[in-house]
Formats: sequence, C-alpha cells, structure tokens
Amino acid sequence: MQIQIREATAADWPAVWAFFRPIVAAGETYTYPRDLDEASARELWLLRPPGRTVVAVDGAGTVLGSAKMNPNHLGAADHIAGASFMVDPGHGGRGVGRALGEHVLAWARAEGYRAMQFNAVVETNTGAVALWRSLGFRILATLPEGFRHPTKGYVGLHIMFQEL
Amino acid sequence: MQIQIREATAADWPAVWAFFRPIVAAGETYTYPRDLDEASARELWLLRPPGRTVVAVDGAGTVLGSAKMNPNHLGAADHIAGASFMVDPGHGGRGVGRALGEHVLAWARAEGYRAMQFNAVVETNTGAVALWRSLGFRILATLPEGFRHPTKGYVGLHIMFQEL
Repeated sequence: MQIQIREATAADWPAVWAFFRPIVAAGETYTYPRDLDEASARELWLLRPPGRTVVAVDGAGTVLGSAKMNPNHLGAADHIAGASFMVDPGHGGRGVGRALGEHVLAWARAEGYRAMQFNAVVETNTGAVALWRSLGFRILATLPEGFRHPTKGYVGLHIMFQEL
Repeated sequence: MQIQIREATAADWPAVWAFFRPIVAAGETYTYPRDLDEASARELWLLRPPGRTVVAVDGAGTVLGSAKMNPNHLGAADHIAGASFMVDPGHGGRGVGRALGEHVLAWARAEGYRAMQFNAVVETNTGAVALWRSLGFRILATLPEGFRHPTKGYVGLHIMFQEL
C-alpha cells in the first residue's frame, strides 16, 4: 500500500473523527476522556504553529491515520518535541503508524528539536511500544499504575524518549 | 514564622506576580517563557476546578508563596495529580515551600488522587529536589539535557513522582 503523509486540513476532520471517536471511546490507549466531544477533540487534535497535524492517505486519498506534533514543554525546555498518533484500525498492521512516526521524527529534526518525548504510552499497548522502540525510542520511566485500563485494571504508563 | 495556606483570590494576583515575574525572568527553575506576559501568567497560574490555587501568607497577611494543583493527565490517567510552586525569594528558607508541598499532598489525597507527578524539576534546582525528596517524591526519570539553563547550559529535567 502506498502511504503518503500530508498536512491535515479542516476538510480531513470528519475522516479523522470517524476512527478517533471509537479509539478514544474504547479507552484502552489514550489519556483522553472516553466521552470526549467532537468540538474538543477537533480543538486538541488540529494544531496551529508551532504545532502541526498531518494525515496519512493512500493512493485513493483515503485517510488511514493522523499524527499531531508540537513542543512538549515551554520556555527553556521547548527543544523537546512531543507527538500523538491515531491509526484507523481498519487500516492497521500496514505500516501507517510507522510512516507517521518516521515523518514526525523527520519533522522534529528539521525544526531543530533536540529530543522527542512521549508522555503517556499505555504499557499494554504493546504494538505501539514495540513500534516506538523500533524507531529509536526507549522507555525512560513508567508511571506505576498510571492508567486505568477498562478490562486490565491499573497498568503502567510509559514515558518514552529519544535524542534527535 | 507563622504560615497559613488559603485559597488564592483574584486580589492576591498582584502580590503573586511581584515574585512570579522575576523568578520566571531569571529562567533557572521554570519551563515558562522568560518573557511571559502578565495576562498569560495569570491565566496559567490561577486555576479553576478541578484545579486549585492557594497562597501561603504570614500572620500579617503578606503573601509568601503560591502553589497550583491539578490533574496531571486527562481521562484514564486523571488519578495522577500535578502541582507547581513559587516562593518569594525574599521569604525563602523559612519553610514556605515545605508548607505548600504538604498542603498540596494533603489536598491530592483528600481529592482521591492516587499519585502525584512533577513533570519538570530542573536538576540544578537542588533545593527543590531535596525538598520534594524529603516529602516522599522520588526521581522517576531525568530528561537528559532537558532544560537550557541560562548559565549552566543544558541540564537534566527530573520527573518526580510519589504514590499517595
């Protein structure tokens, strides 16, 4: 499958929301309220500079996933970037997350960030943890019982990091 | 010195800003922009529920310091609290930070939080690191070169944590 990454536009939002909503409602992977309303979701996902949001699309223009990237801290720590990712489960396992991750890392390097930090990777989301490891991230710490999983109870929440 | 902790009101802001501004402008301890304007500072410091902001005052009502406390994460990680502290350097070394820290921990326990996480404690701010350790926090991780210190260059940024 051909995957292209491009800037997200307002017109992409309905396609993103179509997989964003069920992923967040499942409550297994994100530290967002499970009942997050669409206006709030749109506000927190579609970023303005210095943040940026992209979508991954296939050759037919179908939106397969999305990522947002931004400074993770302010002031004297704003050389550390952060990012979040959503991939349509209907298009999972086909390299969309990896393509988005590689794109975000390239963006952060080009923007002059010195590191990237993920604040909250649920430890039971083993696919994501393995993907980020394969892209150079390490687990810097795990917040013990940091995440209330809907079926697994309290599980750890990883802080993942890499220098750029 | 008698130290009392009470809710911050809008009327306290000028007294807080009087020490907030030079502390942030010095750029040695906070990940806020050094030129943070007053309106932005007020907005980020005086929190509404579920957050809360307090001031420490002496017997004469002089504001000695302030703390804000809030959920550190959303959704399924909102059982982890966070907090930030400012103490007037003119009243430093007299237990104001400790009194604020104890108050914030008591508040978090009473509110049902299960842990408290500080996201960004500058490693060269040794007084703060020692104080938080003495109040039960541990360094869960250090973001390597996470903070650009104005005279010491890139230094580590601690993530400190404790279960409640």
